[in-house]
Amino acid sequence: MNRNAITEKIIATKVSRGITWDEVAHKVGQSKEWTTALCLGQMTANAEQAQAVGDLFGLSEEERKWLQVVPYKGSLPTAVPTDPLIYRWYEIVNVYGTTIKELIHEEFGDGIMSAIDFSMDITREADPRGDRVSVLLSGKFLPYKTY
Amino acid sequence: MNRNAITEKIIATKVSRGITWDEVAHKVGQSKEWTTALCLGQMTANAEQAQAVGDLFGLSEEERKWLQVVPYKGSLPTAVPTDPLIYRWYEIVNVYGTTIKELIHEEFGDGIMSAIDFSMDITREADPRGDRVSVLLSGKFLPYKTY
Amino acid sequence: MNRNAITEKIIATKVSRGITWDEVAHKVGQSKEWTTALCLGQMTANAEQAQAVGDLFGLSEEERKWLQVVPYKGSLPTAVPTDPLIYRWYEIVNVYGTTIKELIHEEFGDGIMSAIDFSMDITREADPRGDRVSVLLSGKFLPYKTY
Amino acid sequence: MNRNAITEKIIATKVSRGITWDEVAHKVGQSKEWTTALCLGQMTANAEQAQAVGDLFGLSEEERKWLQVVPYKGSLPTAVPTDPLIYRWYEIVNVYGTTIKELIHEEFGDGIMSAIDFSMDITREADPRGDRVSVLLSGKFLPYKTY
Amino acid sequence: MNRNAITEKIIATKVSRGITWDEVAHKVGQSKEWTTALCLGQMTANAEQAQAVGDLFGLSEEERKWLQVVPYKGSLPTAVPTDPLIYRWYEIVNVYGTTIKELIHEEFGDGIMSAIDFSMDITREADPRGDRVSVLLSGKFLPYKTY
Amino acid sequence: MNRNAITEKIIATKVSRGITWDEVAHKVGQSKEWTTALCLGQMTANAEQAQAVGDLFGLSEEERKWLQVVPYKGSLPTAVPTDPLIYRWYEIVNVYGTTIKELIHEEFGDGIMSAIDFSMDITREADPRGDRVSVLLSGKFLPYKTY
Amino acid sequence: MNRNAITEKIIATKVSRGITWDEVAHKVGQSKEWTTALCLGQMTANAEQAQAVGDLFGLSEEERKWLQVVPYKGSLPTAVPTDPLIYRWYEIVNVYGTTIKELIHEEFGDGIMSAIDFSMDITREADPRGDRVSVLLSGKFLPYKTY
Amino acid sequence: MNRNAITEKIIATKVSRGITWDEVAHKVGQSKEWTTALCLGQMTANAEQAQAVGDLFGLSEEERKWLQVVPYKGSLPTAVPTDPLIYRWYEIVNVYGTTIKELIHEEFGDGIMSAIDFSMDITREADPRGDRVSVLLSGKFLPYKTY
Amino acid sequence: MNRNAITEKIIATKVSRGITWDEVAHKVGQSKEWTTALCLGQMTANAEQAQAVGDLFGLSEEERKWLQVVPYKGSLPTAVPTDPLIYRWYEIVNVYGTTIKELIHEEFGDGIMSAIDFSMDITREADPRGDRVSVLLSGKFLPYKTY
Amino acid sequence: MNRNAITEKIIATKVSRGITWDEVAHKVGQSKEWTTALCLGQMTANAEQAQAVGDLFGLSEEERKWLQVVPYKGSLPTAVPTDPLIYRWYEIVNVYGTTIKELIHEEFGDGIMSAIDFSMDITREADPRGDRVSVLLSGKFLPYKTY
Repeated sequence: MNRNAITEKIIATKVSRGITWDEVAHKVGQSKEWTTALCLGQMTANAEQAQAVGDLFGLSEEERKWLQVVPYKGSLPTAVPTDPLIYRWYEIVNVYGTTIKELIHEEFGDGIMSAIDFSMDITREADPRGDRVSVLLSGKFLPYKTY
Repeated sequence: MNRNAITEKIIATKVSRGITWDEVAHKVGQSKEWTTALCLGQMTANAEQAQAVGDLFGLSEEERKWLQVVPYKGSLPTAVPTDPLIYRWYEIVNVYGTTIKELIHEEFGDGIMSAIDFSMDITREADPRGDRVSVLLSGKFLPYKTY
Repeated sequence: MNRNAITEKIIATKVSRGITWDEVAHKVGQSKEWTTALCLGQMTANAEQAQAVGDLFGLSEEERKWLQVVPYKGSLPTAVPTDPLIYRWYEIVNVYGTTIKELIHEEFGDGIMSAIDFSMDITREADPRGDRVSVLLSGKFLPYKTY
Repeated sequence: MNRNAITEKIIATKVSRGITWDEVAHKVGQSKEWTTALCLGQMTANAEQAQAVGDLFGLSEEERKWLQVVPYKGSLPTAVPTDPLIYRWYEIVNVYGTTIKELIHEEFGDGIMSAIDFSMDITREADPRGDRVSVLLSGKFLPYKTY
Repeated sequence: MNRNAITEKIIATKVSRGITWDEVAHKVGQSKEWTTALCLGQMTANAEQAQAVGDLFGLSEEERKWLQVVPYKGSLPTAVPTDPLIYRWYEIVNVYGTTIKELIHEEFGDGIMSAIDFSMDITREADPRGDRVSVLLSGKFLPYKTY
Repeated sequence: MNRNAITEKIIATKVSRGITWDEVAHKVGQSKEWTTALCLGQMTANAEQAQAVGDLFGLSEEERKWLQVVPYKGSLPTAVPTDPLIYRWYEIVNVYGTTIKELIHEEFGDGIMSAIDFSMDITREADPRGDRVSVLLSGKFLPYKTY
Repeated sequence: MNRNAITEKIIATKVSRGITWDEVAHKVGQSKEWTTALCLGQMTANAEQAQAVGDLFGLSEEERKWLQVVPYKGSLPTAVPTDPLIYRWYEIVNVYGTTIKELIHEEFGDGIMSAIDFSMDITREADPRGDRVSVLLSGKFLPYKTY
Repeated sequence: MNRNAITEKIIATKVSRGITWDEVAHKVGQSKEWTTALCLGQMTANAEQAQAVGDLFGLSEEERKWLQVVPYKGSLPTAVPTDPLIYRWYEIVNVYGTTIKELIHEEFGDGIMSAIDFSMDITREADPRGDRVSVLLSGKFLPYKTY
Repeated sequence: MNRNAITEKIIATKVSRGITWDEVAHKVGQSKEWTTALCLGQMTANAEQAQAVGDLFGLSEEERKWLQVVPYKGSLPTAVPTDPLIYRWYEIVNVYGTTIKELIHEEFGDGIMSAIDFSMDITREADPRGDRVSVLLSGKFLPYKTY
Repeated sequence: MNRNAITEKIIATKVSRGITWDEVAHKVGQSKEWTTALCLGQMTANAEQAQAVGDLFGLSEEERKWLQVVPYKGSLPTAVPTDPLIYRWYEIVNVYGTTIKELIHEEFGDGIMSAIDFSMDITREADPRGDRVSVLLSGKFLPYKTY
């Protein structure tokens, strides 16, 4: 047994029972973004969160323990993703990467935007010309330390 | 002469003259995100935008024409970026990629978030525990066509 | 169980029962191109389409549900395909890639030809010197947004 | 001097003088697709075609000879293209690759669609919901030989 | 079940029963080169050929059907082969690749030597200094089409 | 100065003066295959061969010396060649690689076909259905040593 | 002019004038680790630091400005370093990577050791069996945020 | 059975029984760093160490023997690690690699810091601004031999 | 069943029964280097050698036949080996590769040192400063043929 | 100026003046293997060695200083070498890698053969069936440290 097996069980149960990520998030009491990442094997649950997920997906005691173990992260099978939806994000990083770098440095100086002290919020933005996906990323700025 | 030479000239002039991307954006009359991407060789200017950029950076007539030619896009030297700031974005795509995919599909069905009909807004979010980089991405949802 | 297992079952049944993609497409009521892509794990069915495919290939209720889940797309085992038929398409992209880019930009300006709002039609073109494969690709032009 | 230098000279002249590929094709007397591929270093000219291109772009006698030498083909800097327009084509091959393979084999049996005895026609398809890029590919079917 | 399983069964049976490729070729009535490629999962049999192979290797009805399905071709596990015998061929392509290109173009003009309308004949060439492997490759020349 | 510079000079002179590889081979007194490989920087000349090549292409004394230095071999810019003519050879190795291995081992036992004690002969094979490229490869069989 | 040119000038001057990194660090007033990273193009100087480095290495006004621009970081030419000293560090990450992950998570929970709020101290550790390189790495622990 | 199976069994038992690496290290009588690396399949136990690990994790006699066999080392699934914690270490090697090289050579001359005669000590460093991960690496300096 | 399964069985039996490669070599009557390579799936046995290995490791009749089939060679899971012992050899090839090339060519002219007509002898070299691994490689020089 | 420039100058001078590595080694007073590696940019000279090399190849004072700077090592342009002579060594590592690992561990236990405290001796071994290249590698065994 390993974390990957838990992830596959969760996904299979989700398909057969028709559960939505939104429902899971409500049960867990966190955002749908963090909760989905947890269920997909990227985040670590505390005991209560593991119980909530376990109850919903029918996980055994041992499987719930695995949700509380820090996983080896990385959710993609190839360095350049082949899935069109995920590739568009890779493309944004590739095309706009140097732009993002320039503008954050212009505003904050040398450092990075944290991907750890980080949150993400994905919402539908109604638009008469076709609805839009609106994503708000928020990461703490961490300045390079001089020593 | 090629677009890459124009990009290098713009960057070198920016360093020696101390121009900010914000100033360039005001001259060009577009957002700082789009304008920076233009100056870094990723977007295409119209005649007026090329003139504004050209005046600011002292570009010749021929160099201004190159700003109006659609460039071969992609701003990173390696498939997995080595620069820490840009890598954090790659990491977000890698760790959260399947999460983003699940949530957009749950809300919109099969399709993608466009990286073409797309905008980005990078701002400083004041926070007593350390200011944050806030990035708002907005891309039109494009459903897969059945035929 | 996952989508890949459904794909393998469909292919194995197709071989043992001698079903053609054309027959599947007629049952599903869509083009043979889209229907084949659906069966090969690249597209998402609605309930009726899943039922038609399920009836033809003897899929269980749960397997039919998987056809309605958006799959992780990408049908090739390597970045550069080794199969000669598919490689010829990669070669067309490699040899003609910059040509295609130039001509679409000359006609439409900066933007892309959508691979989402997209259709494909593969037909036999009779020719006394040897019949030809004729493929009509149609993708909506999406202009880069200025903002 | 090599073919790549000729290609760069042609592109630079095209930008500075505002020549279109369509004009070049008319001068050369071939399709705009083949002619553009020739100018971008992928095809081989005969003496007359080299003269037409040479006159238009001001090429020297030696430069015209290079247009008549078979080039080392392949127009992309990376195996997976980073440019969004060209990537969409790579994505079509990746997502639809096995579909294309299945359907050509269903119609023609084992063999390939030639990328050599091949032509391409890129046109604008007017559409009230947004014009489309229409591309017609035609390649001779070549059956695998038994021996 | 898939083609790969058939290939593994054929190889295992060949080892346990001591069958030679030459015998298989005689049964199938084709060259040993084509027949071996068929058994290794690279070529497509007609009904009679599938029966001959099936009889020799004890294949079931369904397994014989798989021999008649066009396979996904490519017989090597890595892009650069590690096996010394196969690597020497890769080395020939790598060291002599540009030479082969120059000489075929000098004789035939722009085009390729077909790998589809192609045959190969591997024979022993007796030599007092050590016997040689003699390989005759024959591929139709296909000129690049102008259009 | 290095060997690559000599190769480029030879190729440029060949284009501007219209020399054929066949002529070079006659001057050098070796096959056109070996001679072309020498001129393309893959083989090593003796003093007389270097003089013959040097006279034909107008090489200086120092440039002739470089032809006599063993080069770093490998004539292709990428591990998987992008040029269609050379790719077809890579495809033959990829598709037929295991077949070639099986048949040489069936005839000779464990060992390799040498790519060093090796010769190649490329000729035109007239054929009413379209001329063929005929290539005869001959390599000494080298058995694996037991010790 | 770009940052890379400044780095090369600093290194060349260091060799010809026999400057040590320790001397540079004293002039700059920071640790030898940070100062060397600055000179090798990985860190960003403030005005005083740029002046100190500029005085020592004879940099022009413009070159000093480049030291104050945030560089595109990453100091190695290949993803797996070929240099034996640097490779040993890569090997430590490869062999001990999962160990480091387990122990930091056991002590701190899910999160990372910062490579930004980070310092390094390299010293000689005298040892009768052969002196040792002692390296002290100190990075702030950043816990994954729940949201 | 192979070493990897032992590693997976140890990890699964650790999760289900809630054992800490610190406890294992005390039982084995070595540092927690070395002991964890042993349990994760990177180091080789002697008979006593294998017994201690075997008793704790309920390993069979044969499984204990595998702990005493030198393993094929390397603990990461990809050359560039995707896990954020491990990536930060890769980033340190990438960004600071040339700095580390310069400073070790400045102090010791040409040679390397051993990754074999090597130890590592990971500790918590209390800090009011947020605790830090402190890692002490110690490797014997090995000078390049002249001969 | 395939050769890989035999290799795994041999290794597992070796661990559980405590057999040494030296013992195997004595039973087989060949060097320990060749015999180990045979057992690890890289060489081909004759009937007697297969019987000796089979008796020692308890192989079935069919498993002994597999030892007599020429294997697909290559013993490493990645192109650049991660195991430290094997990497050091890769490093020797990487650092000294051009040196080895220069010195063999200086002594022998253009050609290679055979890896087929090749033997290797690994011995312990006692040394008061620490014993050394002494490896003697012997490969026939094969000159490039002119034709 | 950098070390690579010195290497190129040495090689060019060697070709034009017909110097042998053996002569250089005698002047430098070290083995031909170490001396060649020094001249090819892989080793570090002391002042006397740099003077000897400098006198022979006409190096300036600054160029001699570069010979005394520790270089960034690694002499091959690709991870898998294309040159046939060097590839044979890579092949030995690939085919015999696990054999070498097993035998060194059987004799010495867990640890490595040093590539730093290492020497190499390449000699001609006369043989009536064709002379052989004999290479003696000697590296100190370094046991893994327990801590």
